[in-house]
Amino acid sequence: MVVGLGPGNRDCFTPEALAAIKSAQVVVGYHTYLDLIPDLIQDKEKVATPMRGEVERARQAVELAAAGKTVAVVSSGDPGIYGMAGLIIEAAGGRVPVRVIPGITAASAAAASLGAPLMNDFAVISLSDLLTPWETMLKRLEAAAAGDFVIVLYNPRSHGRPDHIKTAREIMLKYKSPATPVGIVRQARRGQEQKTLTTLGDMLNHEIDMLTTVIIGNAQTRTEGDFMVTPRGYRL
Amino acid sequence: MVVGLGPGNRDCFTPEALAAIKSAQVVVGYHTYLDLIPDLIQDKEKVATPMRGEVERARQAVELAAAGKTVAVVSSGDPGIYGMAGLIIEAAGGRVPVRVIPGITAASAAAASLGAPLMNDFAVISLSDLLTPWETMLKRLEAAAAGDFVIVLYNPRSHGRPDHIKTAREIMLKYKSPATPVGIVRQARRGQEQKTLTTLGDMLNHEIDMLTTVIIGNAQTRTEGDFMVTPRGYRL
Ligand SMILES: C[S@@+](CC[C@H](N)C(=O)[O-])C[C@H]1O[C@@H](n2cnc3c(N)ncnc32)[C@H](O)[C@@H]1O
Ligand SMILES: C[S@@+](CC[C@H](N)C(=O)[O-])C[C@H]1O[C@@H](n2cnc3c(N)ncnc32)[C@H](O)[C@@H]1O
Repeated sequence: MVVGLGPGNRDCFTPEALAAIKSAQVVVGYHTYLDLIPDLIQDKEKVATPMRGEVERARQAVELAAAGKTVAVVSSGDPGIYGMAGLIIEAAGGRVPVRVIPGITAASAAAASLGAPLMNDFAVISLSDLLTPWETMLKRLEAAAAGDFVIVLYNPRSHGRPDHIKTAREIMLKYKSPATPVGIVRQARRGQEQKTLTTLGDMLNHEIDMLTTVIIGNAQTRTEGDFMVTPRGYRL
Repeated sequence: MVVGLGPGNRDCFTPEALAAIKSAQVVVGYHTYLDLIPDLIQDKEKVATPMRGEVERARQAVELAAAGKTVAVVSSGDPGIYGMAGLIIEAAGGRVPVRVIPGITAASAAAASLGAPLMNDFAVISLSDLLTPWETMLKRLEAAAAGDFVIVLYNPRSHGRPDHIKTAREIMLKYKSPATPVGIVRQARRGQEQKTLTTLGDMLNHEIDMLTTVIIGNAQTRTEGDFMVTPRGYRL
């Protein structure tokens, strides 16, 4: 089972996810995720893996399952969005059954804190070039901006690549006004959540790191008090 | 409070959403959503509204809140994605405080049932032209296909517009191979869930209605047994 823990706190994952974890004999995941659920896993076998050990983690989980154990691989947010679901299915290769249990993804969590920026069509793009060629990323940023999508950036400044977000902003500015609202949410739905409402022109004057999701509006997006709203087209 | 009930069953919404509903004095929403939670709302004032009464519902909710009541407007999936969050914030206009509580959106639920189609960048597009001009929709379909996004279609055949999905497919075929995997999920995470794995070439030979989410792969997406997977770029 590949289980989504949602964006942050315990009250953000579903009873279905909880039941999956409870039913597991072995729980596999990063230390930081296992630390969220100590009471749920105290009597279970645990495989805590360091950051960026994804392939190794997937292999281990599948081996344990092949040996007859019920295994839960826990992932933050939705395991199907830049998470572990794909690797696990590939590593399993049909030898063991796989079930994916969805969670609330960072886009939804960040959007909720900002108000309602995702009420119209949107594109989700990761700025991590560890796994996607930089050329592909540029092409997608260009296409999404040209299509006037609301754009959600994951991994906006990961692994010491501060320039990707600058390049992304420059591409946006070819199609979107500098006044376009931009929302930056760090640690959404966690204890230390921080949110910032800014503009495409000004966004680089705010802290953006790898615990952050950035949402860039479309041509209709506006601010309403402390909120960022993309109207859906209803007449009020 | 605008509260996401997730895609379907009771085990798909979060403790945060549950607590919000419990704390409310009035619960507002479609009949079908209120019917999911009869025990939670039996002692509360209820405002059940028919389909497509969104503006009226938003106004009523805000009036009740302005009169001092704690109001929960319930929405399926994530209320911030083609849901009620935007309208409520606009109707409130700063007069009453608004809090958005996210839920699992249909894209995540459908993806989980299909395997892992959303492991790489994706675009979410609604084919309902009630609220978005048809020209804009065409432009977005074109841009998302040109950018080799995985594409998630909401409202793929709503309100008697059977041709939108045909047009969408034709635009896709300008950029994507007819062999591109397509997943169709109806009633994800509900009792009667149905999933179909097909291709861009063949997709119109399967039932697609307004209870369905359609996911069209990118150039890397492939099938793995019963699953649809978009590899993220790890080497196994
Ligand atoms: C490798 S991705 C994992 C995404 C996760 N599977 C999901 O569905 O949310 C990591 C990125 O997700 C975003 N993210 C995850 N949790 C977040 C949170 N609580 N607040 C803000 N951004 C978050 C950040 O952009 C971060 O760099
Ligand atoms: C008006 S939108 C509401 C979306 C909702 N707020 C969400 O975040 O999932 C309605 C569309 O969402 C999709 N949808 C909602 N729930 C679904 C489910 N359980 N299974 C499949 N598709 C669903 C369908 O495409 C449907 O036409």
